[in-house]
Amino acid sequence: MYNLYIANKNYSSWSLRPWVLLSELGIEFVEHMNFFKGGYGKNTEFLKFSPTGLVPCLTEHSVTVWDSLAIAEYVYEQHPSVWPKDHAARAWARAAAAEMHSGFSALRNTCSMNCGVRIKLREVSPALQKDLDRLEALWLDGLKRFGGPYLAGDKFTAVDAFFCPVAFRVRSYGLKLSPKSAAYVEHLLDLESMQNWYAAALAEKARDPDHEAELEAAGDLIADYRA
Amino acid sequence: MYNLYIANKNYSSWSLRPWVLLSELGIEFVEHMNFFKGGYGKNTEFLKFSPTGLVPCLTEHSVTVWDSLAIAEYVYEQHPSVWPKDHAARAWARAAAAEMHSGFSALRNTCSMNCGVRIKLREVSPALQKDLDRLEALWLDGLKRFGGPYLAGDKFTAVDAFFCPVAFRVRSYGLKLSPKSAAYVEHLLDLESMQNWYAAALAEKARDPDHEAELEAAGDLIADYRA
Ligand SMILES: N[C@@H](CCC(=O)N[C@@H](CS)C(=O)NCC(=O)O)C(=O)O
Ligand SMILES: N[C@@H](CCC(=O)N[C@@H](CS)C(=O)NCC(=O)O)C(=O)O
Repeated sequence: MYNLYIANKNYSSWSLRPWVLLSELGIEFVEHMNFFKGGYGKNTEFLKFSPTGLVPCLTEHSVTVWDSLAIAEYVYEQHPSVWPKDHAARAWARAAAAEMHSGFSALRNTCSMNCGVRIKLREVSPALQKDLDRLEALWLDGLKRFGGPYLAGDKFTAVDAFFCPVAFRVRSYGLKLSPKSAAYVEHLLDLESMQNWYAAALAEKARDPDHEAELEAAGDLIADYRA
Repeated sequence: MYNLYIANKNYSSWSLRPWVLLSELGIEFVEHMNFFKGGYGKNTEFLKFSPTGLVPCLTEHSVTVWDSLAIAEYVYEQHPSVWPKDHAARAWARAAAAEMHSGFSALRNTCSMNCGVRIKLREVSPALQKDLDRLEALWLDGLKRFGGPYLAGDKFTAVDAFFCPVAFRVRSYGLKLSPKSAAYVEHLLDLESMQNWYAAALAEKARDPDHEAELEAAGDLIADYRA
């Protein structure tokens, strides 16, 4: 049985990736929630289960896997549905997920995940626009190449899981995308496990001052649906 | 047959990862060198073979894999020697490689790869020290857990390839490490394919102004062994 350690649901974009992957594929796991105390980077408590002090972290027997992309590959060894069955689609999906893993830093930094709020961005910087342009090109390529409605074909796989945090960001910050990309975002937001995650995020009462400050730096609050 | 598109050898740390992986494991490939023109981020020429305009990029038949970690997984499907054979060692190796892929940003930004020079760092910032401390902890854990001399056991695998750029950085910037970690760095630098890469880097005559500026920002030049 897998144990999945995550932080909260409103802010923790890295936690969402393996959580939605396992949930959407119906792979059983025990969820361990650990709302950070004292702000990000100060969670010495996380070191009890994660060698980096970061989440997500998956354990099974004596094995600990402390990175979201490595978790996908680890689980894939037992569950082939993690990646597309088709060889070319699988190669594409892995490249796209790994690109997300090490890239899109303007998008990640300017629009930090905050599921329950709606913000009007003060500005779209050139770096953010460059990330959005690349996101468009990547998504449209995948949707066209493999026929949709998921990025690498007709099934939800790890590459979609890696872009689930982006779906929440697009909604929270009202990011402008082409109709096809916007439809893909809606498709992700409509998934049962995304709706479950969102409901749990809205119910959270704890606030992280660092994330709330990032939000204020990014733009004006239009709505806050959190408890 | 694999085609591997890379940039130059003196500066291109991402290119080194799959190059040294394939070379060290004796997996055949055709090397395509493309020294960037006009500085990083301005290489529209790279878009001819890579959808992100970034290297490395591996092609085989009609498949294009445009990210170093995805290249490792792609090649693994045909060549099991890419990751450790042991289940626990493989999980550890993937987590460590993925951590490198998305982390260690202070180390990567402060000490950009520049194989042929030796620099005295102006200062070790707290962020850089934090990365070095984590590097130590990670390496010592792997070396102890799996017995060395490689990070995940007695064979060179992708996790070592992902830390090969760090070995060059440690030497170029004289980074202080524990004796065990320093010995691991020497071990990497001594590999035949690392020596080949290094010789080719030294022979390069082209200079990238952006990387040279980063070097000057980092500290004082002690030696320059380049042509
Ligand atoms: N490369 C890691 C990144 C993990 C990460 O940065 N996690 C954040 C949460 S979204 C974290 O744990 N922050 C806690 C802290 O900094 O104290 C992964 O993919 O799992
Ligand atoms: N996530 C990518 C990162 C690749 C990357 O940033 N490559 C750099 C070279 S080391 C590059 O191509 N820069 C060229 C440019 O920015 O124009 C990977 O792992 O392959």
